[in-house]
Amino acid sequence: MTTKSPLAPKKLPKAPSVGGVNIASGICGLRYINRRDVMLAVFDMGTTVAGTFTKSRTAAAPVNWCKKSLKSGSARALVVNSGNANAFTGRRGDLAVRKTACVVAELIGCNLDEVFVSSTGVIGEPLPVERLTSFLPSLARKLKPTGWANSARAIMTTDTFPKVSVAKAKIGSKQVTLCGISKGSGMIAPDMATMLSFIFTDAKIESRVLQTCLKSAVDKSFNAITVDGDTSTSDTVLLFATGMIKNFSCKSATDPKLRDFRKALDALTLDLAHQVVKDGEGASKFISVTVTGADTKTAAKAIALSIANSPLVKTAIAGADANWGRIVMAVGKAGERANRDKMTIMIGGIKVAENGFAVSEYDEKSVNNHLKGTEVNISVDVGIGYSKKTVWTCDLTHDYIRINSDYRS
Amino acid sequence: MTTKSPLAPKKLPKAPSVGGVNIASGICGLRYINRRDVMLAVFDMGTTVAGTFTKSRTAAAPVNWCKKSLKSGSARALVVNSGNANAFTGRRGDLAVRKTACVVAELIGCNLDEVFVSSTGVIGEPLPVERLTSFLPSLARKLKPTGWANSARAIMTTDTFPKVSVAKAKIGSKQVTLCGISKGSGMIAPDMATMLSFIFTDAKIESRVLQTCLKSAVDKSFNAITVDGDTSTSDTVLLFATGMIKNFSCKSATDPKLRDFRKALDALTLDLAHQVVKDGEGASKFISVTVTGADTKTAAKAIALSIANSPLVKTAIAGADANWGRIVMAVGKAGERANRDKMTIMIGGIKVAENGFAVSEYDEKSVNNHLKGTEVNISVDVGIGYSKKTVWTCDLTHDYIRINSDYRS
Repeated sequence: MTTKSPLAPKKLPKAPSVGGVNIASGICGLRYINRRDVMLAVFDMGTTVAGTFTKSRTAAAPVNWCKKSLKSGSARALVVNSGNANAFTGRRGDLAVRKTACVVAELIGCNLDEVFVSSTGVIGEPLPVERLTSFLPSLARKLKPTGWANSARAIMTTDTFPKVSVAKAKIGSKQVTLCGISKGSGMIAPDMATMLSFIFTDAKIESRVLQTCLKSAVDKSFNAITVDGDTSTSDTVLLFATGMIKNFSCKSATDPKLRDFRKALDALTLDLAHQVVKDGEGASKFISVTVTGADTKTAAKAIALSIANSPLVKTAIAGADANWGRIVMAVGKAGERANRDKMTIMIGGIKVAENGFAVSEYDEKSVNNHLKGTEVNISVDVGIGYSKKTVWTCDLTHDYIRINSDYRS
Repeated sequence: MTTKSPLAPKKLPKAPSVGGVNIASGICGLRYINRRDVMLAVFDMGTTVAGTFTKSRTAAAPVNWCKKSLKSGSARALVVNSGNANAFTGRRGDLAVRKTACVVAELIGCNLDEVFVSSTGVIGEPLPVERLTSFLPSLARKLKPTGWANSARAIMTTDTFPKVSVAKAKIGSKQVTLCGISKGSGMIAPDMATMLSFIFTDAKIESRVLQTCLKSAVDKSFNAITVDGDTSTSDTVLLFATGMIKNFSCKSATDPKLRDFRKALDALTLDLAHQVVKDGEGASKFISVTVTGADTKTAAKAIALSIANSPLVKTAIAGADANWGRIVMAVGKAGERANRDKMTIMIGGIKVAENGFAVSEYDEKSVNNHLKGTEVNISVDVGIGYSKKTVWTCDLTHDYIRINSDYRS
């Protein structure tokens, strides 16, 4: 139905095995016909886990389950299905998650709260949980240390390409591996394009420390992207650390020994977040928006997101129109402090407005050429303070309208 | 270029003269070729004024001017131009407004702060102020008590129809007249579609009382509409009361004698606000979103606007798709309290979800027929408290993308 995004990476990275993780995926037929729609990951004993979730007040049943299970800090399995988000399904939805976790806990012999469950797809329809649970035993027999690309495919909904990212890092003298998969297309359409990401490492890191590392990485990556400003009911990022590599056990996330690991985790989450934007519904351009000179970090982010979410800015970029007046508007509507008479706006590194006034003879041809490309950089200095933030988004095109206003059934 | 919105009213209302107000409009050629682009209104002595403005932090020069002038509470003239918003034009922009006010004050013999100035159109380009000021004397010679339709045309930018509304009311035993004009298309694109509204009455109401009446009316009308969630740098609503009718002078906006006037003002602003939505860029459907059962009025409005601004909700309605999962998502992302398991959603008065669960056999045909019409009603009870709010918007269509991603020059 939809062709691959023009912004998709040329090829999938080669993903190695991660010690202590075995995975499998398959076709269960929950909604889609003949399409991979379930993945299972099983972890060796001693695996720790960290997670971040949607702030939606109407979060899906699996989100609530994972939040609760996270308290134990320990994980033995992850089950993810696509096709049905198990969201807005009331008490029946909660029971479906529990049933799934029970079956997996039985299969591998672990506690109920060591099984993490995630769902993505249509919302408001009961999950055919019997079909899922009766499929899981056969999947458990196929567990292997590799198969990341297929797992990434199994969690896709309206995504046009699977998203995988790999990183290596040193903790002390030991090398550890990180591997992550994501899905998401249209920052977040609850019915077909919720954002999920699962990251696996063989490092040994206790859950409390892992949580701090993950939260910080997510703030700079998944929390700094937007496609349409809509927030999913299912957004979930989980990071599992099996501890198979017996690296030095850091007691704090600020331990210098963790610096390389955290850098790798930051890079991996950013790579996955960028891939999600590049698969944004109807995206034809990848846009970075940097705001400098703001009062606070929070203000910088609010202004950057106001620009990145503005339909008028996004349509102007889709049309390769250097209509920076719309950027001024978006700065103004953010409600944060900005000095009109000190504001500077750059497109593709070229100043188009300075000190609150149009640059009269800027190199219009270079700006237009930049806007006609597939990567667009906007930067705005709001002339108040010293805080800075970059966020990423895509343009708003006819394809977004086509994808989202097509009759569902 | 753009054809008239399919949601435009069948015909313009017949607008009577308003005692103490004389108006004129004409073709000055500030930007558009051979198109009415300036209007002038002159008021008899004793005219009071009230105003509400954009909350943008990058407000245009005329907005700052009007805010300051409002302090005197007295008005003798209003000048409005289209084609250039005089926004993001730095100190030069401030001087252009001052120059305009000076020329008008000289022409009619009044104080500088009794002249109100408003501009709409492209932003970031210097206003050709000499052309405007040299045009004003000829316009002043053409002042007449009628000509509302042409004045409404003179302030249009991307609007596809002029917006006029008329009301009558009684204050004590005296009948007063209200007449208003608006422009706006695409809630608020700063370069071509900022929202302006000017209302004129022959009632005698002191400025402090008038301000309370206006603010309350605007909160229920212009502040309850959205097209694309973008906020203009120029939004301005001004209400002028000439006092030609010697009605009872109310000392407070809560005086029962003002009730009928306030009801008429509320109806008039709501009518104009609805006309702005009906001329929303690319609009094919007029949508009302009512949220009930919220914690507070503020929460109800935040949730209603979250639904009304969601690109996913708006594209679904454009496609006549009863995709209420997206409404659940929009409720969730508003960040206000909502009870997932008590939520009820109605489309066109038909329950599609109740108590947090899909209504299994709702009348899908009736819902689809409703969505295929040009007026769509969404209502959501979030199951928490007793507060309620309605907002209005339009759908998001291919035409919105076409209008806004067309290359500007």
